[in-house]
Amino acid sequence: MSKTEELRKRDLKNIWHPFTQMKDYETEDIIIIEKGKGIYIWDTDGNKYIDSVSSWWVNTLGHSNDRLNKALAAQAEKIEHVIFAGFSHEPAIELAEKLVELTPKELTKVFYSDNGSTAVEVAMKMAYQYWYIKGYPEKSKFIALKNSYHGDTLGAVSVGGVDLFHKIYKPLLAEIHQAVSPYCYRCPMGKCKESCNIECANSVDEILKEYKDEIAGIIIEPLNQAAGGMRIYPPEYMVKIRELCDKYNVLFIDDEVAMGFGRTGKFFAFEHANVVPDIICIAKGITAGYLPLAVTMTNDEIFNTFYDDYETCKTFYHGHSFTANPLAASVAVENLKILEEEKILEKNQPKIKKLTECLEKFRNLSYVGDIRQLGMIGVIELVKNKLTKESFSFEERIGRKIYLAGLKRGAIFRPIGDSLYFMPPYVITEEEIDLLTDIALASLQEVLGN
Amino acid sequence: MSKTEELRKRDLKNIWHPFTQMKDYETEDIIIIEKGKGIYIWDTDGNKYIDSVSSWWVNTLGHSNDRLNKALAAQAEKIEHVIFAGFSHEPAIELAEKLVELTPKELTKVFYSDNGSTAVEVAMKMAYQYWYIKGYPEKSKFIALKNSYHGDTLGAVSVGGVDLFHKIYKPLLAEIHQAVSPYCYRCPMGKCKESCNIECANSVDEILKEYKDEIAGIIIEPLNQAAGGMRIYPPEYMVKIRELCDKYNVLFIDDEVAMGFGRTGKFFAFEHANVVPDIICIAKGITAGYLPLAVTMTNDEIFNTFYDDYETCKTFYHGHSFTANPLAASVAVENLKILEEEKILEKNQPKIKKLTECLEKFRNLSYVGDIRQLGMIGVIELVKNKLTKESFSFEERIGRKIYLAGLKRGAIFRPIGDSLYFMPPYVITEEEIDLLTDIALASLQEVLGN
Repeated sequence: MSKTEELRKRDLKNIWHPFTQMKDYETEDIIIIEKGKGIYIWDTDGNKYIDSVSSWWVNTLGHSNDRLNKALAAQAEKIEHVIFAGFSHEPAIELAEKLVELTPKELTKVFYSDNGSTAVEVAMKMAYQYWYIKGYPEKSKFIALKNSYHGDTLGAVSVGGVDLFHKIYKPLLAEIHQAVSPYCYRCPMGKCKESCNIECANSVDEILKEYKDEIAGIIIEPLNQAAGGMRIYPPEYMVKIRELCDKYNVLFIDDEVAMGFGRTGKFFAFEHANVVPDIICIAKGITAGYLPLAVTMTNDEIFNTFYDDYETCKTFYHGHSFTANPLAASVAVENLKILEEEKILEKNQPKIKKLTECLEKFRNLSYVGDIRQLGMIGVIELVKNKLTKESFSFEERIGRKIYLAGLKRGAIFRPIGDSLYFMPPYVITEEEIDLLTDIALASLQEVLGN
Repeated sequence: MSKTEELRKRDLKNIWHPFTQMKDYETEDIIIIEKGKGIYIWDTDGNKYIDSVSSWWVNTLGHSNDRLNKALAAQAEKIEHVIFAGFSHEPAIELAEKLVELTPKELTKVFYSDNGSTAVEVAMKMAYQYWYIKGYPEKSKFIALKNSYHGDTLGAVSVGGVDLFHKIYKPLLAEIHQAVSPYCYRCPMGKCKESCNIECANSVDEILKEYKDEIAGIIIEPLNQAAGGMRIYPPEYMVKIRELCDKYNVLFIDDEVAMGFGRTGKFFAFEHANVVPDIICIAKGITAGYLPLAVTMTNDEIFNTFYDDYETCKTFYHGHSFTANPLAASVAVENLKILEEEKILEKNQPKIKKLTECLEKFRNLSYVGDIRQLGMIGVIELVKNKLTKESFSFEERIGRKIYLAGLKRGAIFRPIGDSLYFMPPYVITEEEIDLLTDIALASLQEVLGN
């Protein structure tokens, strides 16, 4: 048995993989990864793949980055971890300060946690408790959008709206109000780009009109319902949401977990809309994809509402053992230094333009329904019928076929539903964007023809 | 301004600490930690503290352990992270295999996540979906114990029972059944050690008798309700729970997050009761306190129920970006090697005995109501009146006073309610246990007299 075969056998014997029907591995080999560098990862047989999904959208500066490796090892020599209640440390202090500098002046406070799900859970609990302390305990519900994804813990699932992932857990979830979501390719309001006046936000307006007294906040993924199929939508929608939150006195929670840290072309996605949310959730790219670390940021109004004598019982009782873990925080600080010193977001601009050009390769394929882009994300939505926009059926598993076709050609694609997307580490070159899209084209043609 | 003062100022300007009333820092200095080694951590003024709480119960092998640092740096040079759906890597494979070896033969499958809360969320979703697939979707509720703590995400909070942390979030939580919890010092059944026949488990029996058809599982903290005040209880309780789960056909979820990895004297706490849970949750000590990483383990019956053709929609849709993070997994593998090669659990036995002896120092203090121990955990429950067992009032903040008295003497205590506990890294020596308990004694005497 080869080393790879042996590792595969041991893997399948003992491990239950996330978001995976394990029976798929009866007809598909799990890939055992041995090393990574830049945009590439290598398996134990020496095959090389472009990590075009940035390992679940986390990797920004490439795999095994020398500066980050050095920062990580140096921090371990000092201290790997320390309790963050009553105690603090320089990496967490430096990171929080930089995040406050990077965001609008209203966002002043950093609450650390471990991953995107916990960042959302913190936001929800904080929003609810804010109203509770202010004397509005009935403001306990949230508005979330259809087709949204905010994580997999039950609080985050309760504001999720992807039926495939979320529907069966309904009995375990808190009740929420679900609003229409923006989806320009198949506009829920029957509009097109020219006639659009963000009518899809009316749904939020109607819910708020009726239920504002029981609503703590609205949570959205900014500019892109990512796990729901990379449905990119215009910044004007966020402007409307901000207006509605002000009008009806509910909090605006902006889940920047997948879109933050330069992915959309700006540092945070909300900057495109020129709005300031009340709470933002950050994770994934904060450590450049090295380690789990998350942040929930908020403003003085919310922070000060909790700030009182201990005996008044206004403490925010939330915390995880590894809150503000110094190893992760030191990598995050170095990540921010690299982004700044190496002018990464500036350097991404020609790459974004190159991606725009390369997406045109797919325009005339008979099964390409929509092409969309947001900064360093390119999306191709596939359809069975271009005219009627009819989708492929769930059973056809088009996405999986493209994934397998991509692997053979040295690239990792992980289509969501029928949307193939590119979301590479920022260290990709223009030539590699060309190569990656060529591989995608060949993979598509293998599976679906011309 | 000294470096320490400057760091404190920047901290308080930008950071909202976990489980902390930030106003407390008007009258208390936050301690800025610069380095750690073994059981000690040092602040930026050079003061040294014994980390007697193992930095929120995670650190087992001491701070900045050379072998762990080496493993971490070596893994970063290979690959820091890779998506864990469709892909795998050697550290995750090795770790899962070792965990399966370390647990009873029934526990065969490892599902990775990021922290204790997510390990519990995975367990709950898995248990519910198991019954759902089997054709019992009405089995959607859980039994949890009063005074329990299973984490801070909303699913974990819903099975939590510490009013101070959990009560206000009720509107956001799924409904559960709450059973009486074992608490020998103030037995809810009015029994004493000699007359006890684990009558407190009758409450679970009664709930199951009436509601078994709507119950997916029961979740408990094994042998010790830790965050609820280090309420240690006898293994026989777990035996009863196993019997009741079998009798009424519900799943037994054992939350080993705080008690696993040798803390209780055995590798996992359930070993004391010689029972096998259906699902166990692991985190904290799995990386020896270096990095967030968690595991939910289960058996073939549950795994196989989800195992089917993709089109049958039985996939367990749960995953976090950093699932099975290679950096954390490589540290966890090295941790297990150290535990084994350096015979850490064996070497803990005389330390456990030493702790037993040292706890006697507190026996005759007029305000010591109860002394209890479980392996490497020693607990002293303080009372206002030894005869009536009357507690100190919430407003007296005895715990905080002891914390401040301990800091002055070079030790970190973090009493829960009125229970002072010792839960040091395993690398503590017998001499240091003596020293630590002396410091505790002096601190107690400063605050409460003799």
